[in-house]
Amino acid sequence: MSDGSRFRLDVEYDGTDFSGWQRQLGVRTVQGTLEAALGAVVRAEVVIEGAGRTDAGVHALRQTAHCRLDWDYGPERLGAALEGYLPADLGVRAVRQAPNGFHARFDATGKRYVYFVHEGEQRPVLGRRWLAHIPQHLRLDAMRTAAADLVGHHDFAGFAASRCSAKTTDRTIRSVHMHRRGHRTMIWFEGSGFLYKQVRNMVGTLLEIGRGRMPVGRIREVLDSGDRTMAGPTAPSRGLVLWRVLYGKRESR
Amino acid sequence: MSDGSRFRLDVEYDGTDFSGWQRQLGVRTVQGTLEAALGAVVRAEVVIEGAGRTDAGVHALRQTAHCRLDWDYGPERLGAALEGYLPADLGVRAVRQAPNGFHARFDATGKRYVYFVHEGEQRPVLGRRWLAHIPQHLRLDAMRTAAADLVGHHDFAGFAASRCSAKTTDRTIRSVHMHRRGHRTMIWFEGSGFLYKQVRNMVGTLLEIGRGRMPVGRIREVLDSGDRTMAGPTAPSRGLVLWRVLYGKRESR
Repeated sequence: MSDGSRFRLDVEYDGTDFSGWQRQLGVRTVQGTLEAALGAVVRAEVVIEGAGRTDAGVHALRQTAHCRLDWDYGPERLGAALEGYLPADLGVRAVRQAPNGFHARFDATGKRYVYFVHEGEQRPVLGRRWLAHIPQHLRLDAMRTAAADLVGHHDFAGFAASRCSAKTTDRTIRSVHMHRRGHRTMIWFEGSGFLYKQVRNMVGTLLEIGRGRMPVGRIREVLDSGDRTMAGPTAPSRGLVLWRVLYGKRESR
Repeated sequence: MSDGSRFRLDVEYDGTDFSGWQRQLGVRTVQGTLEAALGAVVRAEVVIEGAGRTDAGVHALRQTAHCRLDWDYGPERLGAALEGYLPADLGVRAVRQAPNGFHARFDATGKRYVYFVHEGEQRPVLGRRWLAHIPQHLRLDAMRTAAADLVGHHDFAGFAASRCSAKTTDRTIRSVHMHRRGHRTMIWFEGSGFLYKQVRNMVGTLLEIGRGRMPVGRIREVLDSGDRTMAGPTAPSRGLVLWRVLYGKRESR
């Protein structure tokens, strides 16, 4: 029996109406929806593996996944066939044939996330599905100073969710950038990988600093102590977008 | 009996699920929803007048309207009270007391619209409610050359909808600008005012030029001939956003 061909899928989704990435019985998830659509195309059960499991309400502009399929008609026709089975809030941006060893999660060399904030008294309307609403004006200078402490190789235990099961809580953050345009502020993160809810916990702390409710030095204190209770609350999922998964030079494994 | 105070409201809406601005019996419209919310707050019938009537599916980041109300608690409390009666896809961005003679439509000195296009084979997902999808790559240089012909005072009869009932089809367009960012292209229009469906008809023609289906000189030909059949098809409403209504120096009337 053939093992099938390996495909890489880059997918975009609006996480608002999904209960996160991971397949769960009786719940609408991205993985489940994508597997069902693939299964309908190839008329067989399909299992996909994503580069990461985004949480309920978190979006992705370009999440990456791989799977093995018995499909002899090439990646382009696979993408076109899939379109017929996907809902409006989930789309395939690219389908390509992948080398046999390709693994969406193990081969990823990094991830880029962006967090979208709408500042001001008025709630956002047009962008309400992906903008977190902060009624106050944020002090971006203080947030930038604090964010610089996140960059580098650290133990991020203080920013990990309690149900985080990673073997080590060490991670590397390569950069944090912030841009403001009118009422919107974007916070960009690039790192080797992130712990469960790490980005939203870092954002939650940065937002508290931006509102003047926590001192600029708090990020450093949370990193040094590993104490989750010193960090800010988890920022809402609606503002978070997995921008893309990075695949640089593949390390031999 | 008091005439009430005059208020100016700046409103934002996602037009996707509205049948346009104008009140219609038994149909969900922006004006109807806003009047019902105001009526619930002041416990009386309220009639509002908007700066313009956007079509079904067209959005607004800042549409302006005025009304007279018996309300003695100031504009801030009116805005806060309104919030309790508005749906997620309609928000009030500002409420202010307006001078007695203020008229949202007659006092407007111009309007700014933006049309959002997503280019490429893949349909947009995250921004699907306000991005028009064009599967081809657009030749922006050709579109810019053509758009320059729109600027100035012209008879726009060839870009007006057939059911347009304006007394004159003369209008002034002050500027047309285009920006591309990745897969997204934005087309900005500023003018004294626009005829019914004029922006979408101009966009439709520009998009045909960008796809190479119409010559660059077509805009000029439509203006000169006034012949609607020479223009491109009306562009989809979902890409159009009324960015803001301009109030410059008020002319004496």
